[in-house]
Amino acid sequence: VPELELIDAVRRLLAPAGDRVLVGSGDDAAVVHARPVAVTSVDTVAEGVHFTRDTHAPGEIGHKALATALSDLAAMGAEPGEAYASLALPPAMPQEEALEVVRGMARLAGEEGVTLAGGDVVGAESLVISVTVNGWAEQAGDLVTRAGARAGDVVGVTGALGASGAGLAVLRGEARGLDPAVAGRLSGAHRCPRARLAAGRALARAGASAMIDLSDGLATDAAHLARASEVAITVRMDDVPVADGVAEAVGGDAAVFAVTAGEDYELLFCIAPEKWEDAARAAAEAGSPASRLGVVDHGSGLTLLGRDGLPVEGLGGYEHG
Amino acid sequence: VPELELIDAVRRLLAPAGDRVLVGSGDDAAVVHARPVAVTSVDTVAEGVHFTRDTHAPGEIGHKALATALSDLAAMGAEPGEAYASLALPPAMPQEEALEVVRGMARLAGEEGVTLAGGDVVGAESLVISVTVNGWAEQAGDLVTRAGARAGDVVGVTGALGASGAGLAVLRGEARGLDPAVAGRLSGAHRCPRARLAAGRALARAGASAMIDLSDGLATDAAHLARASEVAITVRMDDVPVADGVAEAVGGDAAVFAVTAGEDYELLFCIAPEKWEDAARAAAEAGSPASRLGVVDHGSGLTLLGRDGLPVEGLGGYEHG
Repeated sequence: VPELELIDAVRRLLAPAGDRVLVGSGDDAAVVHARPVAVTSVDTVAEGVHFTRDTHAPGEIGHKALATALSDLAAMGAEPGEAYASLALPPAMPQEEALEVVRGMARLAGEEGVTLAGGDVVGAESLVISVTVNGWAEQAGDLVTRAGARAGDVVGVTGALGASGAGLAVLRGEARGLDPAVAGRLSGAHRCPRARLAAGRALARAGASAMIDLSDGLATDAAHLARASEVAITVRMDDVPVADGVAEAVGGDAAVFAVTAGEDYELLFCIAPEKWEDAARAAAEAGSPASRLGVVDHGSGLTLLGRDGLPVEGLGGYEHG
Repeated sequence: VPELELIDAVRRLLAPAGDRVLVGSGDDAAVVHARPVAVTSVDTVAEGVHFTRDTHAPGEIGHKALATALSDLAAMGAEPGEAYASLALPPAMPQEEALEVVRGMARLAGEEGVTLAGGDVVGAESLVISVTVNGWAEQAGDLVTRAGARAGDVVGVTGALGASGAGLAVLRGEARGLDPAVAGRLSGAHRCPRARLAAGRALARAGASAMIDLSDGLATDAAHLARASEVAITVRMDDVPVADGVAEAVGGDAAVFAVTAGEDYELLFCIAPEKWEDAARAAAEAGSPASRLGVVDHGSGLTLLGRDGLPVEGLGGYEHG
């Protein structure tokens, strides 16, 4: 069982009771003012599976755990509210590192306007961090699911893809000879991803019919969306926005890398063509310019079209179940 | 990364979208109708620390993880709403056992009227299960914290104490020669605790001024409550309700065992003396008869009074921080 000293130190990093938080950390549960619709997601990261302490500093592990949970709220177009952190800590982990994990989380929470309102700290055989986020909306109709895409919609994506995957290659020493500034930017994208919260809300308001965050990579996540919406999605590989430096870092076909590498946490969305222009402007104003890269049709599954106009096979895009 | 097959099997155990749940499992986040005040708690249990697979079957691990989280809602007097489960699974764990963990959770959720609305399943180096529960109230004043006890209140506790700790002794083979029915009841109390949700709400309505669930044992948890409320609490050991069979199972002073063993998940509460009778009746009607075992006074800390009227020392009752 972790030292009570550590639990108290963690508690001091959590939000005190305030306007929104009626009862803060230190009681049996946190109590907050709710809004009419609650949006909840849980994300768990484990050492040796989702990160190693070679590639991520403790603060970055905390940052990443919260960012990936918030990305699910972004994909719904929800207003982020509170985050709750569970830390399962191995005995060999120094207290200072455990505190750094929470500090990294608290820093990101502050930047995103999220209240770190509670959690749990326990001993365990290996390091596992689980983050639950509660987001809010005034009504269910303000949110966007994966299931609303319709034939005739266009497909867009925020930002540019592949930076996180290329950053992992940099961190693993697999991408040598890069400009240090480029290498630093790519590895930063991998270590400290940001959820597209403002863009998600802007796209929801602009009328996106379906949305998903790109955690597993476009080739996989677009197939999830197609399946949930019961539509066919076609994406042109030539129109995939590839992040700067990815081509130099990974060699080969950068677009193929960008749609398969994952962990970019950009938002893929569908929207009626007449709403595209307003949506793209709204996303850009929210800090995430959007690119149009595909269409929705009747049918099922995801097709990735290469430069030659023929489907590119073997890039994932599976539908599970 | 766990098999997608397992994730789909878990998903089928989660609640579908329904009246309260607007968007169920399978999207980026769950969406539910909220009420004005949200009450949230996270509880994490880890193999080798909180349970071993010798003493707990997989379904019991799931049950216990959810029950301990719900106990925090009980201690606030909140209406339980949704539960979200995070499973970090070691590679050696058979899929069927992982599913049994979730089934155990789903069974208890059904019995308690809680919606198992989402979660996450990931690979990890060791088994860690984290459960987040969202409960609800119409207004903050309907809830009870640890901090409201006042000098002059009486102290009560639901149910009887020590069964879980004695059950652990039974499971470890440390309590031989017991009647098998008694042994079974005690070990069941340890393996499958229940949160006192109905009693917690009844006590909140009856005007309890402060409440806490007994997870670490009365000697520790009453001290937490005394500290949060900035009062002195005196408990008479003679009035501690000891569960049937505990004396036979553990030998020695059963009351001392009962206040230190923990994991009973009964509720300790304070209430103005003129409200005691109604509160005790309400708790009994909710299935948990209450015993009066102490008083609240000005001052600080917890005093446990022995049969001789002198303080019993060395039973915990520390105040951390």
